[in-house]
Amino acid sequence: MNIPSKHIEEAVEQLASLPSIGKRSALRLVLHLLKRSPEEIERFAQAFITMKSEVKQCTSCGNISDKELCAICLNPNRDTSLICVVEDIRDIMAIEATSSYKGIYHVLGGIISPMDGIGPSDLNIDTLIDKAENQEITEIIFALSATMEGDTTNFYLYKKLKDFDCNISTLSRGVAVGSELQYADELTLGRSIMQRLPFESTFQK
Amino acid sequence: MNIPSKHIEEAVEQLASLPSIGKRSALRLVLHLLKRSPEEIERFAQAFITMKSEVKQCTSCGNISDKELCAICLNPNRDTSLICVVEDIRDIMAIEATSSYKGIYHVLGGIISPMDGIGPSDLNIDTLIDKAENQEITEIIFALSATMEGDTTNFYLYKKLKDFDCNISTLSRGVAVGSELQYADELTLGRSIMQRLPFESTFQK
Repeated sequence: MNIPSKHIEEAVEQLASLPSIGKRSALRLVLHLLKRSPEEIERFAQAFITMKSEVKQCTSCGNISDKELCAICLNPNRDTSLICVVEDIRDIMAIEATSSYKGIYHVLGGIISPMDGIGPSDLNIDTLIDKAENQEITEIIFALSATMEGDTTNFYLYKKLKDFDCNISTLSRGVAVGSELQYADELTLGRSIMQRLPFESTFQK
Repeated sequence: MNIPSKHIEEAVEQLASLPSIGKRSALRLVLHLLKRSPEEIERFAQAFITMKSEVKQCTSCGNISDKELCAICLNPNRDTSLICVVEDIRDIMAIEATSSYKGIYHVLGGIISPMDGIGPSDLNIDTLIDKAENQEITEIIFALSATMEGDTTNFYLYKKLKDFDCNISTLSRGVAVGSELQYADELTLGRSIMQRLPFESTFQK
């Protein structure tokens, strides 16, 4: 692609450096931006600079936050003896959107993935063990992806945490709510049968 | 989506204001940017500000350029008596990539589209008529999209230009090079038959 302006080319390259944006889409976006006023472009650009300089990581759970501690850790109505371990802050948003969880979180910052060169030392695991050792924790919930990497990480964490005096649980796997049985994959349906529940336990409390 | 930082939220909103980027993808991109160094973010943001302040429109053809006149208009090897009318600067890039055209361009900045509220007065049409009137032009080529809006614009331009002493041509339509006949749509194949060419005229010169 032969772009007739090196400034446009630089803007295209910056946008195309983001995941899943190719050069052709980046050019389309840049030409769209070019039609905006200088003030709008200034605001567009400033948003990223402000974000980088102002956004902090919650010192307790690793969630993103504008303060030292995030809104969840600061909330006095949250049960601090219940920790939900997630891979990424987007998982926190997903769980929060369910309104089904009243404990706090611990963000690992990834999962163990030898293929991508990510080992236990690259993750926020020591601080989790420290919490299990020194704080009043009754239960730790593993809420990682249902992939091989997720399972590996779950097992690694389990080995590190099993000797502490707290329950360890994981998300239930099974047929999704609202889906038809015939379309469920065999592995999921198999797990749903093996891990069947007493019918009374499924009544909404 | 409940984002736990208003700075992240502002950056997400700015990215999601671009066409075809939804809030969820924008969040993914912003979290990716957040991992970069402050210098990289500065460079990312600055690229858009510089682009807006430095990029000009070629005063002759309307192409984007870093100077008053674009590289194509400044090139002494270009035939200035041949004007190719395009909708958008991306069309110039596409035609330039073919290396089949040695004339200059005229960017309309859109096509007539009553559905989108775009009429002839919103486009760069007067300057094209001015060129036909006052410059030494031998041929004007309409290279607009093969859509109803493109055809409407072609016809409007034809009515405005037909009385001047220059040839008016349009891109040939037909079965794409390398494609099989049985997969061509009826309209295109029909046009290909009606506008058939003397076989000798297709020999490469």
